[in-house]
Amino acid sequence: MPVFTKQEYAQRVQKTKESMQEKNIDVLVVTDPANLNYLTGYDGWSFYVHQCVLVALDLEQPVWIGRGMDANGARITTFLPNENIYEYADDYVQSLVKHPMQFVADIIRKYGLDKKTIGVEMDQYYFTHSAYVALEKSLPNAKFADANALVNWVRVIKSDNELEMMKRAGQIAVKVMEAAATHIRPGVRECDAASKIVEAQYAGTSEFGGDYPSIVPLMMAGEATKTPHLTWTDKPFQANEACLLELTGVYRHYHAPIARTIFLGNNPPKLMSDTAKVVTDGLLATLDYIKPGVTAEGIEAKWREAISGSTIVKESRLGYSIGVNYPPDWGEHTISLRPGDKTVIKPNMALHLIPGIWYEDVGFEIDATIYITEDGNKSFYDYPIDIIYNA
Amino acid sequence: MPVFTKQEYAQRVQKTKESMQEKNIDVLVVTDPANLNYLTGYDGWSFYVHQCVLVALDLEQPVWIGRGMDANGARITTFLPNENIYEYADDYVQSLVKHPMQFVADIIRKYGLDKKTIGVEMDQYYFTHSAYVALEKSLPNAKFADANALVNWVRVIKSDNELEMMKRAGQIAVKVMEAAATHIRPGVRECDAASKIVEAQYAGTSEFGGDYPSIVPLMMAGEATKTPHLTWTDKPFQANEACLLELTGVYRHYHAPIARTIFLGNNPPKLMSDTAKVVTDGLLATLDYIKPGVTAEGIEAKWREAISGSTIVKESRLGYSIGVNYPPDWGEHTISLRPGDKTVIKPNMALHLIPGIWYEDVGFEIDATIYITEDGNKSFYDYPIDIIYNA
Repeated sequence: MPVFTKQEYAQRVQKTKESMQEKNIDVLVVTDPANLNYLTGYDGWSFYVHQCVLVALDLEQPVWIGRGMDANGARITTFLPNENIYEYADDYVQSLVKHPMQFVADIIRKYGLDKKTIGVEMDQYYFTHSAYVALEKSLPNAKFADANALVNWVRVIKSDNELEMMKRAGQIAVKVMEAAATHIRPGVRECDAASKIVEAQYAGTSEFGGDYPSIVPLMMAGEATKTPHLTWTDKPFQANEACLLELTGVYRHYHAPIARTIFLGNNPPKLMSDTAKVVTDGLLATLDYIKPGVTAEGIEAKWREAISGSTIVKESRLGYSIGVNYPPDWGEHTISLRPGDKTVIKPNMALHLIPGIWYEDVGFEIDATIYITEDGNKSFYDYPIDIIYNA
Repeated sequence: MPVFTKQEYAQRVQKTKESMQEKNIDVLVVTDPANLNYLTGYDGWSFYVHQCVLVALDLEQPVWIGRGMDANGARITTFLPNENIYEYADDYVQSLVKHPMQFVADIIRKYGLDKKTIGVEMDQYYFTHSAYVALEKSLPNAKFADANALVNWVRVIKSDNELEMMKRAGQIAVKVMEAAATHIRPGVRECDAASKIVEAQYAGTSEFGGDYPSIVPLMMAGEATKTPHLTWTDKPFQANEACLLELTGVYRHYHAPIARTIFLGNNPPKLMSDTAKVVTDGLLATLDYIKPGVTAEGIEAKWREAISGSTIVKESRLGYSIGVNYPPDWGEHTISLRPGDKTVIKPNMALHLIPGIWYEDVGFEIDATIYITEDGNKSFYDYPIDIIYNA
């Protein structure tokens, strides 16, 4: 049931071990659900309790450690041999007297790794401060190192198989935005349009079923267009208001985000149409520039140069690396397209460029989701980079 | 745009301050998105970056601190005065050289609270170890205390207004399970059934639009019935297989979970029908028992007594408290129905009882989502507590 071959998972583990060696880390406690999935195929909505995968230089295969009731899920969704799956008892869950990371420490000790340097993902959602404290107290002879985003950086160059997953996600993305364009009309309740958008996300295409996105449909209409990251209300859409959309197609947890702006009429405010033109032209000029050898900050500089004749100021980053992910974020937490990020762009990287602009009275969002080829870049989907008019 | 009255939010803040006083905490750094929502109304999908609400004994109103681009969202969704909304610059996001909690520390210092006892939610998803370290380093004169689940425990007794939200969620839950029962049929792809389920979740009723659930539809069919917490595949359902469903209705982030088991035929395996009868009878007997004055562990003991004539062993907790929540969990992280939890049950508490059973070859799930009345309990919805047969 894992998505990729045993060999591909083995290569990922090998690359992870190479990165660990460079950083003098002997044991890695992986808690990011996307990293669990990437290294072992594990796929369950169980990240709301503590769980992890151990990768150790001294162990050939990763070790999965989680709640007892989720162990069968690990047996179903990973290639791991049964003896590499460890289950903690249910009274560890949300307990005031014991912590699941104490059990993880027991397993580390069982393998004789308790005097090693242990890397943990220190700024990862599902690795809380309590998790760190429990692990550290239980392993007094270990040395701890920050391995935040270590596996994320291994993920940054996708295999061709991964790009294929993202291309399928791209096919779904088109259907998702088509559903939005069909249903976002004056008089339709925002929640009803959202329900059609998410229906398209989960159903996917007739060939490839969809998956749940790491971020639910974000849709900001009317007054809310001055901000990102809001969701729908029960209100019906009004004529002559805009709706900003941050959506995605997802296939097997691989994302191809798609963001567009719908205007419910034919005559948007001048500020909006002017902004749309500058941003769209700027995005297209930036896409023309992206190829192997340019840098992350260079891409952002190109964007800034492209819009420099306008009054638009965008203080937030232009985009980031994407791929496999779980809630609450589809961003990979590696490359950021902003000043200071000197990452050199290489073939098989995947980037989401999303120049969102939010003024006090009006906003505009559009995006491009691309992968890097040998001599340039390609979109994961074919959808017009333009404002959508629904009169 | 907040869901409740200013007065209700003020009461919640007041109760939180009382709990802080009992625990000698002067300043509370609230990072759980459900707690942000509960105390201020804040509602954005922005918890994938660091953000918080400060509650201080010395400050009348809470203070919201988040990413610059999300500040307008705070202005739209909360009652907070503009001067209580603080935005950090975008280069704090996923930076290797600075952390948003350093900015939070600056605000704490600005209010002269940097020598106080500061409570943090130490085992909360969105408060990472790095967040703690950054805060502690930036506030060398502060004392830190674990305030994990402090606000969650304030949430444990719902207002009548909150119960009204959950009753609406219950109405939606019925529509959601009806969608599942309609679409989970032999030959239908699991992803297509999932798409109809989530469509029902988001659309809600004609009166009350739905919301996104804190846990996506969990559906385990065929081989997967031996585990909880998996999601759908692209495969079509097969005749004579079972599908375990963990779903929910959601209204304004208030949940009314509903779990049922569908058998795609008329003759389930004997182990399954036997298990269904024991579990269903046991659940009904347990519901009869629940009223103010009993304890959380007493409820679980009653359940164990009710199934004691059978071969069923359930090692995981029977249920937990629920209410407002955000991904990745709809559980409140307060009351657990299990041995050792001596919480006394009171009116206006809300509980989710979910006796899931997962054997090697077959599983069974059913649930009840109830609130406590003056002399007993009531379900948030009216749906038969029984196995569903879809031949």
